[in-house]
Amino acid sequence: RAINKVLFFPSEVTCVEHFFSPLSTHSCLCPLPHGVETSFSRLLHYILSASSSLNVCVFSFSEVNLSRALLLLHSRGITIRVLTDRDYSAINGTQIGVLRKAGICVRCDRTSVHMHHKFAVVDERLLITGSLNWTQTAVQRNKENILITEDPELVQPFVKEFQRLWLNNNPT
Amino acid sequence: RAINKVLFFPSEVTCVEHFFSPLSTHSCLCPLPHGVETSFSRLLHYILSASSSLNVCVFSFSEVNLSRALLLLHSRGITIRVLTDRDYSAINGTQIGVLRKAGICVRCDRTSVHMHHKFAVVDERLLITGSLNWTQTAVQRNKENILITEDPELVQPFVKEFQRLWLNNNPT
Ligand SMILES: [Zn+2]
Ligand SMILES: [Zn+2]
Repeated sequence: RAINKVLFFPSEVTCVEHFFSPLSTHSCLCPLPHGVETSFSRLLHYILSASSSLNVCVFSFSEVNLSRALLLLHSRGITIRVLTDRDYSAINGTQIGVLRKAGICVRCDRTSVHMHHKFAVVDERLLITGSLNWTQTAVQRNKENILITEDPELVQPFVKEFQRLWLNNNPT
Repeated sequence: RAINKVLFFPSEVTCVEHFFSPLSTHSCLCPLPHGVETSFSRLLHYILSASSSLNVCVFSFSEVNLSRALLLLHSRGITIRVLTDRDYSAINGTQIGVLRKAGICVRCDRTSVHMHHKFAVVDERLLITGSLNWTQTAVQRNKENILITEDPELVQPFVKEFQRLWLNNNPT
């Protein structure tokens, strides 16, 4: 059955260490609630479900656990491409430098207009899109939405638009 | 066949007077291109397709033609509710005052966090959602997306979330 769902934010703040260190699932000593499913843990789950590629197109990217998810996928050999807005790639707390340093391919939209998208495509099959920037404020405080779908009528236009924007922002 | 499509922006700037004065369709003398379908004209088309209700939940609302569309629907007796962010309801060029003055029901999220949604639900049946704020910059300059769907699995959560946010922001 095809995935087709909506997540609303803000998300309750819970421990997500089990996504990154499977061994510690039952032994984490941090003060956050454990074993609770939230909008954010579902978002992480879908991103970490990538088995071949992940294309991310987000205006701002500073949320640390989303960055850790990309680093984990990168270490598993998943092909990751990140397209972001130039103006926001330089702000405080951005994860763009961390991703680049790890060898993940990042391009910045250098035009004077905003690259205002907030979407990702997993394995060219699953679309994650909505109002949510990849920041802690968006996840933990704002009223936001994300739609997650495998419907090809919705996914394919985003696959093509990502490819178009990626080629348009070739730095060479 | 259910509507299920994606629109990308920026949209070409073309004349949209025919939506508001049907008589002038072939006689408009303005300098903009006429008779051209664009992402923005499709967005207007779907908003103006409302026959009973329109619920709008947008962070910022300053685009004049979207405001005119709501005024036209209001004059036809469509029940309109607009929920927006307090911080942005006071900025330059906002249409919130115009809508209120015309008798359209508007509520502002007064919390310190952002009401960052950008969605609308037409007749509790058609969802319009994405990265696009209802501003001229978003429509004419930024790289943005909007998804338009009648899929109940996607529409119904937004119908419920609107109702929840609307009741939470009751000014009385
Ligand atoms: Zn923990
Ligand atoms: Zn004209």
